[in-house]
Amino acid sequence: MRKLRIIGIGAGNPEHLTLQAVRALEQVEAVFVLDKGEVKADLLRLRREICERFITRPFHFVEAQDPERDRNPQDYAAAVEAWHTARAILYETLIDRELGEGGCGAILVWGDPALYDSTLRIVDRIVARGRLALDYDVIPGISSVQALAASHRIALNRIGGPVHITTGRAIADGLPPDAESIVVMLDGDPRFDHLDPELTIYWGAYLGTPNEIVLSGRLGSIASEIRHVRAEARSRHGWIMDTYLLRKPDGR
Amino acid sequence: MRKLRIIGIGAGNPEHLTLQAVRALEQVEAVFVLDKGEVKADLLRLRREICERFITRPFHFVEAQDPERDRNPQDYAAAVEAWHTARAILYETLIDRELGEGGCGAILVWGDPALYDSTLRIVDRIVARGRLALDYDVIPGISSVQALAASHRIALNRIGGPVHITTGRAIADGLPPDAESIVVMLDGDPRFDHLDPELTIYWGAYLGTPNEIVLSGRLGSIASEIRHVRAEARSRHGWIMDTYLLRKPDGR
Repeated sequence: MRKLRIIGIGAGNPEHLTLQAVRALEQVEAVFVLDKGEVKADLLRLRREICERFITRPFHFVEAQDPERDRNPQDYAAAVEAWHTARAILYETLIDRELGEGGCGAILVWGDPALYDSTLRIVDRIVARGRLALDYDVIPGISSVQALAASHRIALNRIGGPVHITTGRAIADGLPPDAESIVVMLDGDPRFDHLDPELTIYWGAYLGTPNEIVLSGRLGSIASEIRHVRAEARSRHGWIMDTYLLRKPDGR
Repeated sequence: MRKLRIIGIGAGNPEHLTLQAVRALEQVEAVFVLDKGEVKADLLRLRREICERFITRPFHFVEAQDPERDRNPQDYAAAVEAWHTARAILYETLIDRELGEGGCGAILVWGDPALYDSTLRIVDRIVARGRLALDYDVIPGISSVQALAASHRIALNRIGGPVHITTGRAIADGLPPDAESIVVMLDGDPRFDHLDPELTIYWGAYLGTPNEIVLSGRLGSIASEIRHVRAEARSRHGWIMDTYLLRKPDGR
């Protein structure tokens, strides 16, 4: 039996790590990282720094090339499924090679493993394949949504009201009619111009890192500034991760 | 100018504290706690333990009786507003009394200050009243929603799908029609019998604590067991905090 720990490491600030995460890292012999092959060198470096700071015994930092993914598939869900299977097989190979019987490895997940992250689905798949006896657990981490709210010093919900967490893709045709507080993640190119200008937006990029940028205001007044700041920052850093909360007007 | 730190301390496991929270606690001279007057002695004790473990300098643990709140108001939002104002005045008095000029205090929030917690609204109100020069910041914490997902080892969302976070009150007449993954918090008496029995439920109580209980399954098959376990645990501990994820059938 090998042990795998799926560890949420927060939104970019190493101080987001929980004591539980630190404790888990202390026991790890190998950390598995799939390189997105994109311009995420900053993120890779940050992950290495976390490992070097917190892993107390000798360990392997196991990098591999992430399988190719169809970015504009006809069938989005089927393409994601195929990609998950490819990742599962790759992880299975790496775990088998790097961890001995009774060994303990980790996968570090940005933010929280429960939110828009494929790691748990991939580990489920490894277990279902049945070729590797694997015990695993999950350590929650601070998500970018929480870092966003903390930096703006706001609650996500209105008093007693719901919070709808969704993706840029899902709001391409507009917001859900009944939602009042909408968190948007994974929006690779926020347009904003199809949305009600009376919405309030709380936007943040590189949340938790020294490069953090936050902006907020009436969407109609600030959307073009956000798009401008975003494009400039993305070009300067070579990548961007951002998220935002939209709040419908006329509430408390 | 006095400094106030609003610190998310996680769902009940002291190991949920982030390094950022620990660092913040090290500088604190006073911790302000409003006693709910309910049977939350366990929670108060846990909060004391966190303070004693992490606050390194002499500090005051400042307890006060939470203002009375109308639990069955005609106008829910107005009653909450009135209660927030009463809490703001109380905190203002305590901060003024316990913190000197340049002093640093903290309010510890279960879970994350951004989710169904009134502290930020109350601090906004203190600042707006303008009687106390107050600088404050927010340190995010692991919420019970994340602890729930971690214990069940699941993602909250389906692949690319939205997550709707809401309250027991808001689903009393049924689930939002378009939601597929619904997290329910603050449900003082989950009934379940008005919901589709084909839903899958992931339920958890006392999440993150040694008393944690988790159950999951087809709602129609497991609802009565959850209600039974919940009632028994509540009677044994004198209180219960629980949360659950409902997932609509027929997805991946």
